[in-house]
Amino acid sequence: MSSRERPGEDGLIARYFAPIAGEGGLGLTDDAARITPEPGHDIVLTVDALVERVHFMPEDAPGSIARKALAVNVSDLAAKGADPAGFLLSLALPENWTEDWLAAFAAGLGEAARDFACPLLGGDTVKTAGPLTLSVTALGEVPTGRMVRRTSAQVGDLICVTGTIGDAALGLRLRSEPAWAETLSPDERAHLADRYLHPRPRHRLAAALRDHAGAAMDVSDGLAGDLAKMMRASGTSALIDADQVPLSGAAAKAIQGSPELRDLALTGGDDYEILCTVPEMNLDRFRKEADRVGITLSVIGRVVSGHDLSVFRMNGRERRYDVGSYQHF
Amino acid sequence: MSSRERPGEDGLIARYFAPIAGEGGLGLTDDAARITPEPGHDIVLTVDALVERVHFMPEDAPGSIARKALAVNVSDLAAKGADPAGFLLSLALPENWTEDWLAAFAAGLGEAARDFACPLLGGDTVKTAGPLTLSVTALGEVPTGRMVRRTSAQVGDLICVTGTIGDAALGLRLRSEPAWAETLSPDERAHLADRYLHPRPRHRLAAALRDHAGAAMDVSDGLAGDLAKMMRASGTSALIDADQVPLSGAAAKAIQGSPELRDLALTGGDDYEILCTVPEMNLDRFRKEADRVGITLSVIGRVVSGHDLSVFRMNGRERRYDVGSYQHF
Repeated sequence: MSSRERPGEDGLIARYFAPIAGEGGLGLTDDAARITPEPGHDIVLTVDALVERVHFMPEDAPGSIARKALAVNVSDLAAKGADPAGFLLSLALPENWTEDWLAAFAAGLGEAARDFACPLLGGDTVKTAGPLTLSVTALGEVPTGRMVRRTSAQVGDLICVTGTIGDAALGLRLRSEPAWAETLSPDERAHLADRYLHPRPRHRLAAALRDHAGAAMDVSDGLAGDLAKMMRASGTSALIDADQVPLSGAAAKAIQGSPELRDLALTGGDDYEILCTVPEMNLDRFRKEADRVGITLSVIGRVVSGHDLSVFRMNGRERRYDVGSYQHF
Repeated sequence: MSSRERPGEDGLIARYFAPIAGEGGLGLTDDAARITPEPGHDIVLTVDALVERVHFMPEDAPGSIARKALAVNVSDLAAKGADPAGFLLSLALPENWTEDWLAAFAAGLGEAARDFACPLLGGDTVKTAGPLTLSVTALGEVPTGRMVRRTSAQVGDLICVTGTIGDAALGLRLRSEPAWAETLSPDERAHLADRYLHPRPRHRLAAALRDHAGAAMDVSDGLAGDLAKMMRASGTSALIDADQVPLSGAAAKAIQGSPELRDLALTGGDDYEILCTVPEMNLDRFRKEADRVGITLSVIGRVVSGHDLSVFRMNGRERRYDVGSYQHF
């Protein structure tokens, strides 16, 4: 019965998605969306898929799932120095979807679109016999030729990271093995859980990255593995002072109590912070711009010559991590 | 064992997708792709998802599945008068994927990308516990403000359709209920099956549509239902001479043998032909342009005033079909 009461695809789009669409979405009534690029700008494009029980859990709030799907894409744009221009959503819904779920999903998506200044442009909704599957394609704009690459790290550049590292990985671990977290306060546990559920893309740093960074990427598969990717792409290596890797109070306390969690923080993924290289002469101006938009920057190391794996120094010991320390796939 | 031998996500991208990527894909080694839009052009965007057992069958050739996923998107671009600029692929692979399957899929995708002049720009590959799920986002370009809308049909315009209608729906029906097709030759059956498996997007008609059409859309959910959508979006109605709806020899023979199949041909979907309205004074030039790129045009009716459902006249009888005569969802 409930199945017959739910709207079909066109009704579902009109009811839930058209109200949150941006101007380029043309009311979601045509075959396609349209944007007029800013003259003298390139379009930067990224796509990320999220599958239930791989990238989120069925019990997660629908609005959180929607926000995360958009946030991980906006994070990619930010790392490339691109200002968000809009996104398209592909949604494969299992048979048991409900209108309540979809209403909450669309509300969260609309709110995230406003927060990230990244309007909904279009989409497609299909049914699946499998898990809920989302795919978001996001578009951004950069002045022509100014996209920040992974490949442009220079020997001698400083290595910086935004915000704090490891919270999301610890937040995810809380779900499966919460024993180590008994020493944390409820607020500290909530902070870690929230960082996993609600990535905070650094889109407000895009302009500063274009102006001051050498190379950049977002930290989605773990700081250590993503650093290895960026150094490999640039033909360089890095020397990292692991004690300078910024930790939240909650993460620091967790690691103090269970030192083996430091590895998880460095390799765990889902941080959605920006990892970048910065010529030393740019650092003050870069930091000033970051401060202006309320984003904390930490210098964690330096680009060095060579093709060896980057070295993380901590407490007089050295560790090396390869690409693939963590993979969603 | 075979699972351990398969590459991880990065290896899979490097082995199968990077070799078929276009220049804007940056070797698929960065977080994002980049295109530099033609000055004075808009970007047109469309996304379509395909799910195994909904939009294709597991036994379909992997190259055919890949081609269809791209073709249905290029068809949307074509209907909007947009020239293809590139696409992004989101791929959720079930646990039992094999390298042979993926190699054939990527080969078919690369071939389709060349045929449609629509290069691979980027993508994301994830695992799923459910059916194979693909989502393609395609980008096209039109001179600014020249995207052909669904909403711009004018009373008095002629209604045209490209190619032939109904083949794909009959081709799909062949799979489940082949009895009616006994009178068809093997070649005729193969033609119908092929039209379902291998849509032929009309991207070569994009420029002529911009220059000569009033409104346009592609026929994906059935001629009758898609016409109803376009007329509703334009605030008009239509009078169709059903005998003028172009049929292939195979479809005509099938309908001659089983007249009830005419309804399936008109409502069945998956045609991926272009339905458009054309001011009468433009018809000769439009037809000439279509001839030049090898696409057959048929005039099937005329836009009339009013908000009633369009009328299909055949053999002195009249029929009306609403939106949703066929829906994937």
